[in-house]
This record gives sequence, structure tokens and C-alpha cells, in this order.
Amino acid sequence: MNWKVTQSLPISFEIFRSQDALSFNKIDIDRKLIVIDLNFYNLYCDKIIIDKNTKILTIECLESTKDWKTAESILDFFEKNDVLRRSEPIIAIGGGVLLDIVGFCCSIYRRGIPYIRIPTTLLSLIDASIGIKTSINHFNRRNRFGSFYPPLYSIIDNQFIKTQDDRQISNGVAEMIKLSIVTDQELFLLLEKNVKELMEQRFQGNIANQTINIAIGGMLSQLTSNLWETNLERPVDFGHSFSPIIEMKNVDDLLHGEAVILDCLLSSCIAFIKNMICEDVLIRIFKLIQSYTLPTYHTDFFDIDLLNIALSDTKKHRNGNIFLPLPTAIGSCNITNNLTDPELLLAILKMKELNARF
Amino acid sequence: MNWKVTQSLPISFEIFRSQDALSFNKIDIDRKLIVIDLNFYNLYCDKIIIDKNTKILTIECLESTKDWKTAESILDFFEKNDVLRRSEPIIAIGGGVLLDIVGFCCSIYRRGIPYIRIPTTLLSLIDASIGIKTSINHFNRRNRFGSFYPPLYSIIDNQFIKTQDDRQISNGVAEMIKLSIVTDQELFLLLEKNVKELMEQRFQGNIANQTINIAIGGMLSQLTSNLWETNLERPVDFGHSFSPIIEMKNVDDLLHGEAVILDCLLSSCIAFIKNMICEDVLIRIFKLIQSYTLPTYHTDFFDIDLLNIALSDTKKHRNGNIFLPLPTAIGSCNITNNLTDPELLLAILKMKELNARF
Repeated sequence: MNWKVTQSLPISFEIFRSQDALSFNKIDIDRKLIVIDLNFYNLYCDKIIIDKNTKILTIECLESTKDWKTAESILDFFEKNDVLRRSEPIIAIGGGVLLDIVGFCCSIYRRGIPYIRIPTTLLSLIDASIGIKTSINHFNRRNRFGSFYPPLYSIIDNQFIKTQDDRQISNGVAEMIKLSIVTDQELFLLLEKNVKELMEQRFQGNIANQTINIAIGGMLSQLTSNLWETNLERPVDFGHSFSPIIEMKNVDDLLHGEAVILDCLLSSCIAFIKNMICEDVLIRIFKLIQSYTLPTYHTDFFDIDLLNIALSDTKKHRNGNIFLPLPTAIGSCNITNNLTDPELLLAILKMKELNARF
Repeated sequence: MNWKVTQSLPISFEIFRSQDALSFNKIDIDRKLIVIDLNFYNLYCDKIIIDKNTKILTIECLESTKDWKTAESILDFFEKNDVLRRSEPIIAIGGGVLLDIVGFCCSIYRRGIPYIRIPTTLLSLIDASIGIKTSINHFNRRNRFGSFYPPLYSIIDNQFIKTQDDRQISNGVAEMIKLSIVTDQELFLLLEKNVKELMEQRFQGNIANQTINIAIGGMLSQLTSNLWETNLERPVDFGHSFSPIIEMKNVDDLLHGEAVILDCLLSSCIAFIKNMICEDVLIRIFKLIQSYTLPTYHTDFFDIDLLNIALSDTKKHRNGNIFLPLPTAIGSCNITNNLTDPELLLAILKMKELNARF
């Protein structure tokens, strides 16, 4: 006797823009269970209408505390508040770390309870809020544990960016630049032409809205057909090949977008060494990164042994392949499955040379 | 700008019977990563062909250690062995506790790595190996964390039951009796008529195979259309309404099947009090349970306060409803959403009376 089970799990979620995301207060749920970033809460608590049926857990969110211990405190909040399995969605308000960890907790509590994401940073607006990934760090490895678990919806409100500092905004721009290099020339041009306006206006206004919409749409078009990463050859992994280990080595010091953009630059140098892009394109990439005061120089990205260790961990995640996304022009890329030590060494030298030159 | 993502995740897994499950040694994987129950390993290690590419982790599995700490030790085994994300399925060999916890670890490690289930107990053959549920205990609550995560396949080999003791075999029969009462008169009759043969032959032979096949097929027909428990009104939850809390209160003392069958008996008494079954049917249920030397008496099941606490936790899991499956005859049931304290009290008295009478 053999049996075969064949079924499919339908997934559906929405991402919508709002000029008043904290109006989730109007959402028709009897009890509102909110897990919110402590810093954001201190800035915006006046705007959150709290009634006797609202329960709030504030969490101090750092990459270094995106761990099981923090997850347990969130799970404890669910347990203490007797959350129902289906009809009391958790409202997660914060940056990528908070959204990832709350999503993970919701995915495992009673094998899954619903949740709503409200991102509060430029980075999480265009990144953590878009796909269905959740995670925590472990073994000093980024996102080692996690799940694919969609929220009910994400509410995108770019007004919160107003209260972010320059470094945090640039941190978000890094993921936009990443996406633009490998998939979207139009976004690259917009970011290139409007540095001053975007940064000074803190991503408010028309051009900002345009870049945010393009970034979200672009991410979605990359992710939608590959939500569960059946295909491990992913252009959006650009910038995520060497960076995870280096980011964790410099945890809370090097921000996620900073580690990613350094990886993007190194990978672009590899593309240059492999004759996949010309020097003009490489220099445009370098200068765009520099114009948003993102780092272009980091000694860990010049350490070939460390880079090889980092890549070997990434290989396990890509099932034995390096599947390195490398640009072939502004807005397009190829996935490469080989990289020699001499190529990597020459790419490091090129990255150093660019830093010396500009 | 709003975006909507609609996709579906195809799920497919197989359950097949084998007379030589440990021949997984023939499975074409370069490296075999095995997580195995320590007691089973001590009994069967001669049968497992270990080559230089086999890595084994033995785990002592008890309900009381089905926790995050044990999960971490399994996850550490994955990490230390550099398991690839897709092509090195973990082979889980053991009873329900081991299969649940290894499945959970596989579901969260790198957001999911593949695994194969080889159940080694009658209970896990017909229960933990059939659906797609994984779990660990937490907050002193049974299966508080978990996921829906199918294995590649389950290999069912009833020869292992030969080395189980009587109490462990009866523990497995409990879930068969449960299923038979609410969904399958034929299975009930088979179990009723063949007590001696099934127990003496330790579930080997034709009738045993028949009961196992019916139990697996019956479980599958209940689960397949509701794999993710979209519908919370589940006949297979019979016996799982009051028992989880009481099982955890008596952890490692009262076995899972024992707790479940006590709940089945109490629930059948409730059905009798509600005039859903006649006394003859109730007595047949009582006697069948008794014939497999399963418990019919436990003071915790006579403690109305404890029963109400247990039911209130179950209500959260059933999203505010009790959704109590109650038999209406041998082989059929209704889901009831109300239970009064007087009814519960009368059911307790009935259960006591049956124990005094037989």
C-alpha cells in the first residue's frame, strides 16, 4: 500500500500605500495586539490610539538581538494575552529586524497566526515588507532560522522616513540601488539624478514616491513567481553573496544596507574583471553609491580568506552553487556559477583602486 | 498604489509501506544525515549501514524534552555538518516526539530543508507520519510552536512494533480506536474482534496490516482536504480537546495515546449525556478501550475545574470555539459547539459509574 498526497496552499496578501498607516486603529479587530519598535513608539506613541482592548509590546530591535531570546519574549506576549488562532492578527510596527522576527514568531505560534506589517524605515518599506520571508539570526549567522509566511497585508507609509536620520535613509537607498543595478535602469537614473532632493526631502514628494513605487513593484516582479525560492538563481540576491557573514562580524556597526552595498560594489568589480561590464558602468555604480554617502571601502571586503569563507556559507544556501548575480549593464544581470581566486583578488584590487581614485 | 500577490504552493508527499525501511541506505544521497531515537538506535544499529558519509545524531526522546533545547541540538547538528539547503534530506527515525521535533527543525533551518520520516512506533506509524504537522512544546503547552511542513515521504514498516512493549503498542492502538469511533465502523469492528491476535502478534500479520492500512487511509481522508486546518471543525480532534493540558500535567507518566483515549471516553460520556449515543454504544467504546489495557480512569479527568481550564486553552486553538467532536454512533460524529457545566459534571459521573460497573 502506498499513498500520495497532492495539494496546494493558496497564498494571497496585499501591499498598500497609505498616508496614515497608524490608522490601523480603524481596523475592525476587537483586540489589537501590537508589537512595536521601542524607538518608533517613543516618537509616535501620540498617534497610536490605545483603548482598553489594545495590548502593546515594545521591543528594542537590533541585528544583534534578532535572536531566539527576543523571539521568546514576543511569543510570551502572545501566550500571556491568550491570542486566538485566527481572528486576532498581530500588528507588527518597526524596521526589518522587527518585522522579520515578529513574522517568524507568528509563523510558529500554534503553527501560524495572522499578522499585519507596518514598516517604519525606508529599508523595510521596500524590502522586509515585500516578500513572505521571516527570520531570526542564530549560530552567529544571519537569518539562519525562518519561514516563508505571508502577512495579511503590509501598509506602506513613507511619512515615517521623515524622522529617520541620514545614515538610516541611505541604508534603505542601498537596497534600491542594488535592485536598480541588476533589474531597473529607470530606477538607477532616478536615484542618480535626484540625490539631493531625495535626501533633503527625506523621501517625501513625487520623485520619492516614484522611486518607492518602482522599487516595490520591481521587488514584487522578482519575487512573485518565486515566492518560496524554488529557483535559487535570484537577481535580488545581488549584494547578498559575501555580505551576510561580514555583516554579522560587524553586527550593529555595519548596517544591513551598508554591508549589501559593499557586496554590490565588490560584485560589480568582479563583473568588470570578468569583462561583463565596462569601466564606465562600474564607475557610475561606484559614484551612485558614494553620492548617498554609503560606504565603498571596508577592510573585510578586501580580505580574500574572509570573502571565501562567506561565499562558502552562501553556497550551502544556494545548494552547492555560488549563483552569483553580476551586472551586465545598468539594469540587467547574469547569474554566474564560477569565480576563481585570481578574479576575486583582481576585483578587490579594482575596488581599492576606485576608492583611491574618487 | 496597491499591489496584490496571489500564488499557490504545491505540496506533494508520499507514504509507502516497506518491509525493510532501514534500506533507506539505498536511497541515492551522497551524505546521509540521520537523526535517530537513542533507544531505537541501540536496538537496531546493526541494521543501519553506516559509511564514511553517514552522520548520525542520537536523541533521547521524551515528551518532557520535546522542547527548544532539544531542537537547538538538532539544529546544531545541521549547522556543524554544513547541510545543503535542498539536496541532503534529513532522515528522521523514531517515534512521534522525534518526528515532530525533527520536522520542526527542518522547517525553520534556512527556511526549510527536506526530510524523510521513518516512524518506529505503532503510534507514529498511523499518526505523526501521516499529516504535515511539526511541533515542539513550550510554556508547558503541548505543540505550542510548530509548522505545517510536509516531508519528502514517510516509510512505514510495522516490523519495528515487534520490539515495542505492550503499553507502547496499546498507546498506538489508542489513536486507532479514536479514529474508528468517529469515522470508521469497520476499523472499530476489526479492533474489537481481534484484540488477542493483534496484541500477541504485536501488530504483525494480515489483520494488523489491514488495521494499519485502514487507519492510515482514514487519517489521510480526514487530513488531505484540510492539510493546513483551514477548517477547525475536525473529527480527528476527537480525544484532543481536554487531553493536551492533562497530558502535559502528567508528562512522561501518562502517554499521549493514554491521555487521548481518556478524553475519547469522557467525550463519549458527554455524547451519551447529550443523548447523541445510547448506553450500548458507550459501553462498547468503554470495553474496547479496556480490552487493550488502556486507562479508563484518571482523577484529572474527574476534576471539572481542570477540564474547564483545558477546554479554554483548546478554545483558543479553535479560534474561540470548542468544536467538540462527539460520536453519534460507532463510526460517525458531529461537531458540537456547546457544553454546559452540568453536562460535563454528569459525563464525569457517568465515566466513574462505568469504571465501577466494569
